[in-house]
Amino acid sequence: MPQESRTITVSLAADPYPVLIGGGLLGDLGFFLLERGIPSGTRVLMVTNPDVEAFHGARALQSLEASGFVVRTLVIEAGEEQKNPATVAAIHDAAFAHRLERSSLIVALGGGVVGDMAGFAAATWLRGIAVVQVPTTLLAMVDAAIGGKTGVNHPGGKNLIGAFHQPKLVLIDPLVLATLPEREFRAGMAEVIKYAVIGDGILFRDLEAAAERDPSGGLASRDALGPVLLQRLLERSAAAKARVVAADEREGGLRAILNYGHTLGHAVENLSGYGTWLHGEAVGLGMLAAGDIAVAMGLWSQADQDRQRRLIAAAGLPMDWPDLDPEAVLVSLQADKKVRQGKVRFVLPTGVGSVTIRDDVDPTTIRAALAVATSIGAP
Amino acid sequence: MPQESRTITVSLAADPYPVLIGGGLLGDLGFFLLERGIPSGTRVLMVTNPDVEAFHGARALQSLEASGFVVRTLVIEAGEEQKNPATVAAIHDAAFAHRLERSSLIVALGGGVVGDMAGFAAATWLRGIAVVQVPTTLLAMVDAAIGGKTGVNHPGGKNLIGAFHQPKLVLIDPLVLATLPEREFRAGMAEVIKYAVIGDGILFRDLEAAAERDPSGGLASRDALGPVLLQRLLERSAAAKARVVAADEREGGLRAILNYGHTLGHAVENLSGYGTWLHGEAVGLGMLAAGDIAVAMGLWSQADQDRQRRLIAAAGLPMDWPDLDPEAVLVSLQADKKVRQGKVRFVLPTGVGSVTIRDDVDPTTIRAALAVATSIGAP
Repeated sequence: MPQESRTITVSLAADPYPVLIGGGLLGDLGFFLLERGIPSGTRVLMVTNPDVEAFHGARALQSLEASGFVVRTLVIEAGEEQKNPATVAAIHDAAFAHRLERSSLIVALGGGVVGDMAGFAAATWLRGIAVVQVPTTLLAMVDAAIGGKTGVNHPGGKNLIGAFHQPKLVLIDPLVLATLPEREFRAGMAEVIKYAVIGDGILFRDLEAAAERDPSGGLASRDALGPVLLQRLLERSAAAKARVVAADEREGGLRAILNYGHTLGHAVENLSGYGTWLHGEAVGLGMLAAGDIAVAMGLWSQADQDRQRRLIAAAGLPMDWPDLDPEAVLVSLQADKKVRQGKVRFVLPTGVGSVTIRDDVDPTTIRAALAVATSIGAP
Repeated sequence: MPQESRTITVSLAADPYPVLIGGGLLGDLGFFLLERGIPSGTRVLMVTNPDVEAFHGARALQSLEASGFVVRTLVIEAGEEQKNPATVAAIHDAAFAHRLERSSLIVALGGGVVGDMAGFAAATWLRGIAVVQVPTTLLAMVDAAIGGKTGVNHPGGKNLIGAFHQPKLVLIDPLVLATLPEREFRAGMAEVIKYAVIGDGILFRDLEAAAERDPSGGLASRDALGPVLLQRLLERSAAAKARVVAADEREGGLRAILNYGHTLGHAVENLSGYGTWLHGEAVGLGMLAAGDIAVAMGLWSQADQDRQRRLIAAAGLPMDWPDLDPEAVLVSLQADKKVRQGKVRFVLPTGVGSVTIRDDVDPTTIRAALAVATSIGAP
């Protein structure tokens, strides 16, 4: 058993589930499934991608088999280009071939794309079988793996096809981040900063302390953070996500605040073509622009916007708003899932640790903020 | 407003919904959506199939538009061969083209295949938008439209891909059955008989009275039944389904009794190739065989099995168990969704209006029942 680990519970009325966080937990995956009440002998389809399989697949498999699970591994390509119904069909085919039953289990071992697709395949196989999320990227650890959002892309937009399907268990092992490319680590840090801005002033100041020690890289890598701060960031981020999800499982209201930075971030992703920006990088850009909009609307101060900018800079994230046609951005916003009756909803900061949701942002204000973001961001 | 109609509520804790039953209700579809709290101006994608569109599409459309809904109709081929992820993708494409939002609605106007696919498309678009079921076949009215089971076929078996997604409203208008092919009417009657056997002795005796008047056709058509008995059968069947669904939304236990006749029925469908038998015809054959198994196990009497046979005969349903290799049937049973830990679960009658669930049926007993069904059924 690992020395330091912590359990955070996502307190859903119907089926609460634990998020386990601690270095080395992956080697005990099988044990934790048993502890969660999944009996030895259960058929398990482990879905992963080639890199993760190479680094961590054997350990996960060994742990599962040692606990008596009947495991088959499916390795899928898991870039945004493969995040589509055809890949879900491949998971379904493997589920059929491995004779999964309603009491069987899918384990998603990988980043957000693996988790989203394996989760969606589980949600739609036999009208829903259990899934366990084992995220291996920082982004998935603090965001995608917790909360039950699953899905794939449609040619018309990201994640338009999907379902809410809560996992039975989320297992987060920070040691696996040792093999994560640094660019992906930085992208994940954007979501950590998001939690700080939307609801956790203590986390914000923790991040600021690290950023002050090294303004250009203090938040940019696992080594820069060190294991103690990393564990703390994971715990606070997971706890923030768990609180919001428990209060609003299906994104009726409060959960929308998790979309801070995502409205414009999705527009950046859509218009640049999937793959140009990592999701977290786009969210970072979206937070910069949303902050500028909030300043323009008098919702928060330029001083706080500058504090947010410093954190994003210390994470080594892109600071230059890309050269996109502002009118195309406005059109793209209309296609977002979060549109209601044609109105685009923005999550805007009102202070460090608090946000508000507005559907009355003037297109002129958006255009102006994009211009500011571009001119400030330009080198 | 129609003269005689009745509302049955499916009492789910999270989101109870009404099932409206009455001649002529289709012409008031728009009104009932407004009454259900779906605001005028909501974008609606109406999914239907060519025959139903030709007979009833205009009236449904007119009613929706008169109430201010922004409607687009998608006509899909809806045989079992088209019940696959590709057709769901076509519905998703239409949802995107019609700019459906989370607050938008899909209306399924058609039989079980339309309802299952439109429901699944709604369950998985934007992680779930509302669906209203307007069944136009007897089978869909008494079974598929109520209860939230949605899905499509996988090459390995029926309905292996799907989700639970409860409708906002179910609207049943018996007048639309005037355009239903008689073979499909008879197939639907199999599910009515199912409700009688599994839990409604009063319905069983209603059916027997009609069968005694005409042993070879008293239950075989809308005209033979007459409007009063038809309304009554629809109400009792819907109420039976609603009770079971409310008690067990996700098929954890009680709901499994609705699978009476389906375990062997699915095997008949799988082995004969989709399209050879209508679903209800296969269920009728499955009930005959399940009854024989129950007799062999001493669970119910030959006299009651004979009463069941008379109802199935009066509905004009096939009485001849098809010429299938019993060993192939046994293998097919293993692929059923209802298998747990490799054990096939059978719903078996114990009396008129009561059933039990058993997972200890001996393969020898199954073989013997299939032999009995074949020899009795042979002309």
